[in-house]
Amino acid sequence: MAKIYSASTTAPVNIATLKYWGKRDTKLNLPTNSSISVTLSQDDLRTHTTASASESFTRDILWLNGTEESVTGARTTACLAELRALRKKLEDSNSSLPPLSSYKLHIVSENNFPTAAGLASSAAGFAALIRAIADLYELPQSEEELSRIARQGSGSACRSLYGGYVAWEMGNKEDGSDSRAVQIATEAQWPDMRAAILVVSAKKKETSSTTGMQTTAKTSPLFKYRVEVVVPERFKQMSKAIEKKDFEVFADLTMADSNQFHAVCLDSSPPVFYMNDVSRNVISLVEKLNSLAGRIVAAYTFDAGPNAVLYYLERDESVVLGLLKAALPDLEGWQKKPAVIASVPEGISSEMYDSLKEGVSRIILTGVGPSPQKTGESLVGDDGLPKFSNKSEA
Amino acid sequence: MAKIYSASTTAPVNIATLKYWGKRDTKLNLPTNSSISVTLSQDDLRTHTTASASESFTRDILWLNGTEESVTGARTTACLAELRALRKKLEDSNSSLPPLSSYKLHIVSENNFPTAAGLASSAAGFAALIRAIADLYELPQSEEELSRIARQGSGSACRSLYGGYVAWEMGNKEDGSDSRAVQIATEAQWPDMRAAILVVSAKKKETSSTTGMQTTAKTSPLFKYRVEVVVPERFKQMSKAIEKKDFEVFADLTMADSNQFHAVCLDSSPPVFYMNDVSRNVISLVEKLNSLAGRIVAAYTFDAGPNAVLYYLERDESVVLGLLKAALPDLEGWQKKPAVIASVPEGISSEMYDSLKEGVSRIILTGVGPSPQKTGESLVGDDGLPKFSNKSEA
Repeated sequence: MAKIYSASTTAPVNIATLKYWGKRDTKLNLPTNSSISVTLSQDDLRTHTTASASESFTRDILWLNGTEESVTGARTTACLAELRALRKKLEDSNSSLPPLSSYKLHIVSENNFPTAAGLASSAAGFAALIRAIADLYELPQSEEELSRIARQGSGSACRSLYGGYVAWEMGNKEDGSDSRAVQIATEAQWPDMRAAILVVSAKKKETSSTTGMQTTAKTSPLFKYRVEVVVPERFKQMSKAIEKKDFEVFADLTMADSNQFHAVCLDSSPPVFYMNDVSRNVISLVEKLNSLAGRIVAAYTFDAGPNAVLYYLERDESVVLGLLKAALPDLEGWQKKPAVIASVPEGISSEMYDSLKEGVSRIILTGVGPSPQKTGESLVGDDGLPKFSNKSEA
Repeated sequence: MAKIYSASTTAPVNIATLKYWGKRDTKLNLPTNSSISVTLSQDDLRTHTTASASESFTRDILWLNGTEESVTGARTTACLAELRALRKKLEDSNSSLPPLSSYKLHIVSENNFPTAAGLASSAAGFAALIRAIADLYELPQSEEELSRIARQGSGSACRSLYGGYVAWEMGNKEDGSDSRAVQIATEAQWPDMRAAILVVSAKKKETSSTTGMQTTAKTSPLFKYRVEVVVPERFKQMSKAIEKKDFEVFADLTMADSNQFHAVCLDSSPPVFYMNDVSRNVISLVEKLNSLAGRIVAAYTFDAGPNAVLYYLERDESVVLGLLKAALPDLEGWQKKPAVIASVPEGISSEMYDSLKEGVSRIILTGVGPSPQKTGESLVGDDGLPKFSNKSEA
């Protein structure tokens, strides 16, 4: 067997605080508005990907969580073609480089979180794919340049190439060359941001985000006003709040923008629903908690599904997690923070948090984290095949 | 005891198809946008009110469903003062009239529907109050003029002074003199409009509509665009659809506007929720039904609570009610239509309608109906007190 070249990386999940919803170009994944997200720690949620290339390989193959997945989709094809073209340029200018651009790829990818949890894994997945291949190809391109490629795989993936606090600037060029991610602040600049993910079971299949955002963009009368008037203003305010580490402004905008994203979904025809009664109970509980505290101690945000993500600062961990533990004492996930003591602020009735018990299946305690990380742990064996059939949880 | 003068009327409920949400003047109940509603039949839902006046009465008293209610609230006070002033004018120009304007009022009011059902009863209640007193006072004022008074009691009450299809024109004068209801079409002009109300139990106390609409008007960034841009266009389109009896356009706008009303509630801070998972299941079922039919056979609309109101034409009764009966065979309310046969269109899975069973407690089958009706049945006895302590259902 010919030599196998490989590179491995892990890449993070990001959860938007200013939501991406709507494409102005579906082929290039160009958005109708800029968005902002927090990159979460890879200790808790990550995709681990090894990209390998060899003259012996006969076709491009991708194994995701042990199962072979198609690499012929338009999105994956576009990413691979762009990366190969960049490698080809390098090879053309330096003939001593092995011709990896002409070799087929074996890519092995694994998530360390349950795929059934409905956590947006495509962002971490495409970020890891792009990062691993770029490392394999020893590409000199910056994160910003790679983010343009990742964007074509999955829009929000462009934000997962950075750690910390990340903006996806929508750009305005037709070819998408100015639609890319930039870092607003590193995780070290504002390290005390924590996140708790409440995994809520969905009773029925939700509308895919691609379908949902097209329905909204085409049919919601309020959508145009959101993307043209509301979001540009919020983008400036939230960027500034992050730079100033102003949690209250950041949190207030995060909640308002989650609600407005779901509002334009509801304003669509047919209406698109992602939150359910459990999600709404989480909102009520957080609103009540903030109202009793007289300041914003936690912010909720919901993506295209019923799961809640709460952002809070480390200093408020005991009050935020104390309340959640009182409501949901038996969840998988608490073992990570054995010191949390269940406690309920005066003024919150047990009715309010009892209603959560039915619908929340798991809590994931995490926080802001860094960009994709190189790792020596390869998922590809000497035979060019995945080392492990399926290590991921079901 | 001195002579008791009295007049009795029944007044209808109306359910908005273009929603009233937002006040530009809270004292005068002036709305931020015009609205449209359908007046429902009084056979099924009505308030019955007797207004009586006598020199012997020592104070104004209102009995609602057998319980004495305050008449000193600003809204009721404003209505009574305006009606008395109109009566006083009549008396001043004709000295043979008894001086009813100087007599205290005993008002007895009863609803024929369960107050616990969360059906907006204040519209019917204030419409009946205004109509009964106007009849007692033999006021020559038109419905349009009386609607300005009813509006001050409860905004949407102004629409319950007419039968059929009714518009509340928001007006633009500061004193509210041009904010009044007008009839778009009589019930006879489009008689085949049917309505099915699905009474959904709310687990927790909802935000009152007064509080909710103030929160939205003050905090929702999308609200201004809705009232200034979206609603004026929809108002024209829906008025025209009613005049042309174009059910598809009427129904499409009805659903879109219900969804947009709830969207701006969600866009508020804190967000205001009225629909729950059961409400959303009703929406999904109706959307699926229409999609399978290839035309709009039914429209849903939701007010400030989880109850669904479905509008449909008599010709489609078997398909709409057949599906509801299959989903909810044991509900109170079906006895009114014993001929309805449960039937499910091909393509609708039992999962879709099974989810309704948990949350719907009652169905009310009704349709478009007439304006308030005079009745000889008085609720005030010869002693000036209510004839019946409490005939209403709990």
